[in-house]
Amino acid sequence: MLAHESPRNIKLTLAYDGYDFAGWQVQPDRPTIQGTLVSVIEQITGETTLPQGSGRTDAGVHALAQVATVAIHSPIPLLNFRKALNHVLPRAIRVLNAEEAPADFHARKSAHAKTYRYRIYRGEICAPFLARYVYHHPYPLDQEAMAKAAEVVAGEHDFTSFAAVDLDARKENAEINNIRTIYSSSWQCEGEELVYTVRGNGFLHHMVRNLVGTFLMIGKGGLTSKDLKRILDLRDRSAAAATAPASGLYLVRVEY
Amino acid sequence: MLAHESPRNIKLTLAYDGYDFAGWQVQPDRPTIQGTLVSVIEQITGETTLPQGSGRTDAGVHALAQVATVAIHSPIPLLNFRKALNHVLPRAIRVLNAEEAPADFHARKSAHAKTYRYRIYRGEICAPFLARYVYHHPYPLDQEAMAKAAEVVAGEHDFTSFAAVDLDARKENAEINNIRTIYSSSWQCEGEELVYTVRGNGFLHHMVRNLVGTFLMIGKGGLTSKDLKRILDLRDRSAAAATAPASGLYLVRVEY
Repeated sequence: MLAHESPRNIKLTLAYDGYDFAGWQVQPDRPTIQGTLVSVIEQITGETTLPQGSGRTDAGVHALAQVATVAIHSPIPLLNFRKALNHVLPRAIRVLNAEEAPADFHARKSAHAKTYRYRIYRGEICAPFLARYVYHHPYPLDQEAMAKAAEVVAGEHDFTSFAAVDLDARKENAEINNIRTIYSSSWQCEGEELVYTVRGNGFLHHMVRNLVGTFLMIGKGGLTSKDLKRILDLRDRSAAAATAPASGLYLVRVEY
Repeated sequence: MLAHESPRNIKLTLAYDGYDFAGWQVQPDRPTIQGTLVSVIEQITGETTLPQGSGRTDAGVHALAQVATVAIHSPIPLLNFRKALNHVLPRAIRVLNAEEAPADFHARKSAHAKTYRYRIYRGEICAPFLARYVYHHPYPLDQEAMAKAAEVVAGEHDFTSFAAVDLDARKENAEINNIRTIYSSSWQCEGEELVYTVRGNGFLHHMVRNLVGTFLMIGKGGLTSKDLKRILDLRDRSAAAATAPASGLYLVRVEY
């Protein structure tokens, strides 16, 4: 059957609770989203294939709609494939959708925009049912200053100051540079939560958590929006504040 | 100081995500809510004391407001005690309130009524962020039949058919009997969830999960409300349906 000689390119949309995983990328002897998918797809199709994500998420980071492509030869119908995946996968990972994609569709390279959210819980006591899914920060924050700071990062900037200094990131970014365009960047109050939503054409490793860490420093009064502009200009990771905890971060949407 | 010779009786109100715990009751080499409290209270006060709960919750069962009493000699102010507990406890256990109780107050014996809830998620795909906190049942259910059945258990009944057959339960119930009064028992639709709420003067071991298991069997058409009456009359655990999974169950309130 000629049609099955080159593999199908299946686009999966995934939600996951990243709390108990060591991130997206496969690692020896540690539970990862990609690694779990590899073994579950092998169990279902008998094929060994490495799903390609729209990007890595770090240990503890969640996804509402991560996108990954997987090359399989099995003629399994899409609906059956999705159901079989959800039957075998741990409940912390769900396949929301499976669809046929053109051969040249690539989860990372074809992406035009991504949206992330970061949830901060402000109440004094964080319900145990929420603890895995937010960053608990019950101390005072100047929300107006944080809102202003969020606006500063909108537009095209060199985000070197907010990129993780690690070899992986360097390798990944070598092809292009650290310039990214942020289409929107804002904080919203949602009940007892303060939520940051950012949409851009791409994000460097740790970029959202590093931005949130600096916004928090601004909220505490340790820095101002002016400092944020200066930090961006410095293009030096050590100029910005600490990385915010992983548990509050969600990959919300990938646009193609 | 004479006042500190007999211990203080502190009433704690606790919320917990029971998913990763082997239940309330202390067990060797397994994480339990009571066992975690013992070691955390010892760390804070230097005193070894066994908190007494309003009742045991099983492995995987959650609590929105479990009540426990703890006898300590430390003069630590209540607010500091609560804050210290929440600082040291894992985030899956929170102390919502700490108050001074009379010496004769007993978390279990003084309780007049308890309320439990059981959450069933009906949607086809259960979000990973919900999976630990509901029972996922995406198949058809006759909700009207379940609503009718819920009414049958209201009132005073011998619930032997819905009590776990185990030595612990026998021991615990030896003092009295298996007759309990249910003040209210009903199902509500809440978005994509079907939620059972039951309030009574006491509950036998596994009683709520055994009732829900039988309501589910009625919802699937395998039994009727008439069968439920017959099962109650039989006073035989083997007559009722299987125990519903722990993840959907919450101890909601204890009344004194």
